[in-house]
Amino acid sequence: MGTPAQLLDETREQGLKELEDFLRIPSISSQPDHAADVRRAAGHLAEQYERIGLENAEVIETGGHPAVYADWLKAPGKPTVLLYGHYDVQPVDPLDLWKSPPFEPIRDNGLLLARGSSDDKGQIAIHWQAIDAWLRSTGELPLNLKVIAEGEEEVSSAHFEDFVKANLDKLKTDYCVVSDTAMVGKGFPAITYGLRGMVYFEIRVEAADVDMHSGLMGGVAPNPAQALAEILMRLKDPSGLVLVPGFYDEVRPLSDEERRQYARVPFDEGSIKKTYGLEALHGEPGFTPTEREWARPTLDVNGIWGGYQGPGSKTIIPAWAAAKVSCRLVPDQDPEEVMQAVSAYIAEVRPKTVRVKVTELSRGEPWITPVDHPLIQAARQALGRVYGKEPALIRSGGSIPAVEVMGRRLNAPCLLVGFVLPDSFAHAPNERLDLDSFYTGRKAAAALWEEIARIQP
Amino acid sequence: MGTPAQLLDETREQGLKELEDFLRIPSISSQPDHAADVRRAAGHLAEQYERIGLENAEVIETGGHPAVYADWLKAPGKPTVLLYGHYDVQPVDPLDLWKSPPFEPIRDNGLLLARGSSDDKGQIAIHWQAIDAWLRSTGELPLNLKVIAEGEEEVSSAHFEDFVKANLDKLKTDYCVVSDTAMVGKGFPAITYGLRGMVYFEIRVEAADVDMHSGLMGGVAPNPAQALAEILMRLKDPSGLVLVPGFYDEVRPLSDEERRQYARVPFDEGSIKKTYGLEALHGEPGFTPTEREWARPTLDVNGIWGGYQGPGSKTIIPAWAAAKVSCRLVPDQDPEEVMQAVSAYIAEVRPKTVRVKVTELSRGEPWITPVDHPLIQAARQALGRVYGKEPALIRSGGSIPAVEVMGRRLNAPCLLVGFVLPDSFAHAPNERLDLDSFYTGRKAAAALWEEIARIQP
Repeated sequence: MGTPAQLLDETREQGLKELEDFLRIPSISSQPDHAADVRRAAGHLAEQYERIGLENAEVIETGGHPAVYADWLKAPGKPTVLLYGHYDVQPVDPLDLWKSPPFEPIRDNGLLLARGSSDDKGQIAIHWQAIDAWLRSTGELPLNLKVIAEGEEEVSSAHFEDFVKANLDKLKTDYCVVSDTAMVGKGFPAITYGLRGMVYFEIRVEAADVDMHSGLMGGVAPNPAQALAEILMRLKDPSGLVLVPGFYDEVRPLSDEERRQYARVPFDEGSIKKTYGLEALHGEPGFTPTEREWARPTLDVNGIWGGYQGPGSKTIIPAWAAAKVSCRLVPDQDPEEVMQAVSAYIAEVRPKTVRVKVTELSRGEPWITPVDHPLIQAARQALGRVYGKEPALIRSGGSIPAVEVMGRRLNAPCLLVGFVLPDSFAHAPNERLDLDSFYTGRKAAAALWEEIARIQP
Repeated sequence: MGTPAQLLDETREQGLKELEDFLRIPSISSQPDHAADVRRAAGHLAEQYERIGLENAEVIETGGHPAVYADWLKAPGKPTVLLYGHYDVQPVDPLDLWKSPPFEPIRDNGLLLARGSSDDKGQIAIHWQAIDAWLRSTGELPLNLKVIAEGEEEVSSAHFEDFVKANLDKLKTDYCVVSDTAMVGKGFPAITYGLRGMVYFEIRVEAADVDMHSGLMGGVAPNPAQALAEILMRLKDPSGLVLVPGFYDEVRPLSDEERRQYARVPFDEGSIKKTYGLEALHGEPGFTPTEREWARPTLDVNGIWGGYQGPGSKTIIPAWAAAKVSCRLVPDQDPEEVMQAVSAYIAEVRPKTVRVKVTELSRGEPWITPVDHPLIQAARQALGRVYGKEPALIRSGGSIPAVEVMGRRLNAPCLLVGFVLPDSFAHAPNERLDLDSFYTGRKAAAALWEEIARIQP
């Protein structure tokens, strides 16, 4: 039967058809009307896992949409990997911007168009087909594998932590592998080894119990919106530097190797500015935009409001004003410590003419697997071999709740590797999958297990 | 027949009944359902003017509710005064908080309860009864009088400027007298000789065309809410000092006499803090709260908004943020010049990473009649004599559109004198008129014409 790679070269059409069948199920997790479709997609996926020879395939109930599990644990002495993906998809509106119906996949000039084709059903299919190739060509996998597919990634993984907590033994693993990220570009693979965490809080500044007449009280009463502006300027200076004492103390410095790696990833300032309509970029001095996004913490206003927002004039001094503010955090910052430092600092510097309340709304830990970790090195080997190009070692400025949960609950190093292109229009109309990347991705996925299997415990 | 004052002492019950009849007409100018009532009140008032012997009584159409005019111009060589009041009233909701129906006046423990009893029908009645007493006791008035009653004061005097423009000859006068303000307290009369003006504008800060993901763009893109906070802090420092260059240049300094006068007016900081639920007062250093309210300009945020305002967290960097900001202005600041200075300053100090737009929304001139003006001195004489107490010489921090319009269009010094108490619950449920103040007010109004008549041209 040859090698897994050879078999994958011979089964491209079959693989694409399998994916197309999967994509026809409109598993939109955020829309209650589609709950049955989500469940149907879970069943369909469990059937695929069973068909290719994984064992213990099971649809597992959670407090929301179910998860799908399967495993193959017949490689004693070899590492165990937990592979994560998600089978739910984003909504499709506005529907009229789609060139073709989002759940009727069509092939168009080297692309497959459908909702979920890249995010994330395409990557789930890449993996099951790589596993299938291993099992069909060699009768076995080179390591122990547990596969989990979540049905609520697009709704903030609402029940994922409860699910992991309830299945700690079943999910016990040496390593996690997550395929829900993108490559740098066509033929340029990427390994994501870090994500930012967050604390998100609300600052409410209250000057009075009621709105006041600005003629009678202007010059007499404190203005809560002005006091809020003062607090915001105490938190971050005009250059972008966060002023909270100790804020940067636990930030893990960027190594020369990391900076070198980031510099390999093209950053097109003009294109970014055009995409968002930005006048200029802005951020902490001393770092490139990429370094700032991936490896530096931030403090940003997410929303601000208070007083009169309607048309024309209303001559009031508002009773109160509020802002939502969040800090993106990087290793080794601790959300709890940062929240305490921010609260204490605001209490200290706030104008004493007003009442200020800081309320935490959410938090998440930053996550990192060091670039010199054997898991990362194994992935470098596998991807370098298949793509013929040294993969980029990158981080992401966002958070992936499932990664944060697995890191915290399973205590296992994690590798994020994706096989789709960054311009796949995930979450947008005309989501697409580049077919060349799909085919190469299947071979890279197969190679990954081979290299991870070589890690010495 | 005796003097006007004697006659007024003898006709208290009659005067109160006249006022009660006037108060029974629900002339709520802001509610279209009451348009006919407003017109009925205008007709009723014109009849009173005619009945007491004023001439040329007329209901004059405007673009909105009508105005009422009458005059008596038979004192050649004597000054002409234009007397202003308004016969429209505020809405009455919430109705369930009223002790008695708002348009069925009742007498209760020395008070008359009804909507309009103090603001401003009571003061209109005070004047017609003082005029009536003059004409009945002496057959004449000591000066030439033009009386105007507006029907749209409670809806921002929407058509008053057009009305004045269209009737410049009819309204031509040496002096204006406005009775729509309050005394300092029972037995303590006040003369208001200055009002603040205003420029009101919106600052819109735009960082991007769309909201941005705070994970991907946090540390990369400028934050418009933060930039707006920076602009607000550039405009006014934490002490309350406005930082716009030249802002205070044209401010007329307070004289020692003015400061002495203001200090006579009780200012109960504890009571103000309790009324509004304030933690502290705040304003420009070097001035008392009263001086700041009446005679110092301010810059205040009236509203601020941008980004996410809903429950919980949304991890965006907003595309834009905006604030409504207004400056209360004092003599001799010019709204046009202040607006230009503010705009130029914002353009200079704004963060250059964002787009900033400043749009003027409204403006009004500050107004003052100097305290040593003969008109003010005449009022001091009249009030001092009737109340047996030197009247307070005060200003107000707000604006009265009609005063601003008359000052600008008629080019005549203006006197603001009111005969009602400050705790009359104007605009609130259970609006009331203190009957002692009503009776004394009628005599003060009569004395006022006698003193103004003595002014030498």
